[in-house]
Amino acid sequence: MKYPQALEDLIECFTNLPSVGKKTAERYALYVLMHMDDASITDFSNALISIKKDIHICNNCGNISEGDTCSICKDEKRNKRQILVVENVKDLFTIEKINEYQGIYHVLNGAISFSKGIGIDDLNINSLIEKVKNNMVDEIILATNATLEGETTARYIKELLQEYSVKITRIAHGLPVGGDLSYADEMTVLKAFEGRREY
Amino acid sequence: MKYPQALEDLIECFTNLPSVGKKTAERYALYVLMHMDDASITDFSNALISIKKDIHICNNCGNISEGDTCSICKDEKRNKRQILVVENVKDLFTIEKINEYQGIYHVLNGAISFSKGIGIDDLNINSLIEKVKNNMVDEIILATNATLEGETTARYIKELLQEYSVKITRIAHGLPVGGDLSYADEMTVLKAFEGRREY
Repeated sequence: MKYPQALEDLIECFTNLPSVGKKTAERYALYVLMHMDDASITDFSNALISIKKDIHICNNCGNISEGDTCSICKDEKRNKRQILVVENVKDLFTIEKINEYQGIYHVLNGAISFSKGIGIDDLNINSLIEKVKNNMVDEIILATNATLEGETTARYIKELLQEYSVKITRIAHGLPVGGDLSYADEMTVLKAFEGRREY
Repeated sequence: MKYPQALEDLIECFTNLPSVGKKTAERYALYVLMHMDDASITDFSNALISIKKDIHICNNCGNISEGDTCSICKDEKRNKRQILVVENVKDLFTIEKINEYQGIYHVLNGAISFSKGIGIDDLNINSLIEKVKNNMVDEIILATNATLEGETTARYIKELLQEYSVKITRIAHGLPVGGDLSYADEMTVLKAFEGRREY
């Protein structure tokens, strides 16, 4: 026995979301059907349509933006010669939250992944290289994740930029503040050990 | 730093879904924004609108239906005098999958929960009692979950129906087929023990 077509369609839509399988999608769709009122569903439907209409991708850094250029790139107090490279917009917002960084960003929109078939052409890398080539950058801070994909991407960008006179740094990986050494995974302990500094 | 309003709105919509917190909603909304194409988003938006328009609640049993009465209640081969009571539509579909049950259903649309403030008036119980009163039923099979809420609901319905000459049964709870006794939780073992039968 199958669900009515409209329900099957909505389940199908929910399965497109990251880490949402058939069971979870069923749960979401049935919840919408049985527990959400018409007004909330209309709001939800409109919010989906608005997202692409109202939000653009910054033509300079790849951040999300209400205009063509994002508020960070437009901010005159920001140092345009310091560029912090992140895998995605969420990472950018995480760094913005510490209220410390005063440069601008570059969003790759992913990381090189052989298993997922994501190569360099799928990422927003070229415009970064162009900026370095045109001598518009003093420092590139690589803040891709400390995963196989993030490390591969960081290394690849470093190699591409080696011939230019730009300072390349990588954010520190180590034990999280408040973290207990005995609970840390081996890779984190290794990174913490390798990255030790004079005390 | 906040996300653009359109993104905040979509995040808010996703948090309405069951067990979706702020972080997961952020992930979903950013995925829609960064990785879904316009056509998929339009489909998603339309699927939400269609769900309430195209799917109705069966006026007899509470199941979802493309018309006013669901395909099960309309099926002439089904025994209308045997009613299996479930908490929700998903449970109904789970039982339909075994292709064994030949009666009809009654969907409560929830279970009594003191902690969530769900009382008997929030559930679809009255029409079931009416059917029994009007001598339209031979057997009521209680298939609410083996949780505190499901048991409370089953007991409550049993009490309401005790004065009428209707057979009331409860589906069996015990060890799942293929399950290992040593991995079962205490309540399941207790139910399995209590429900033991001559062998």
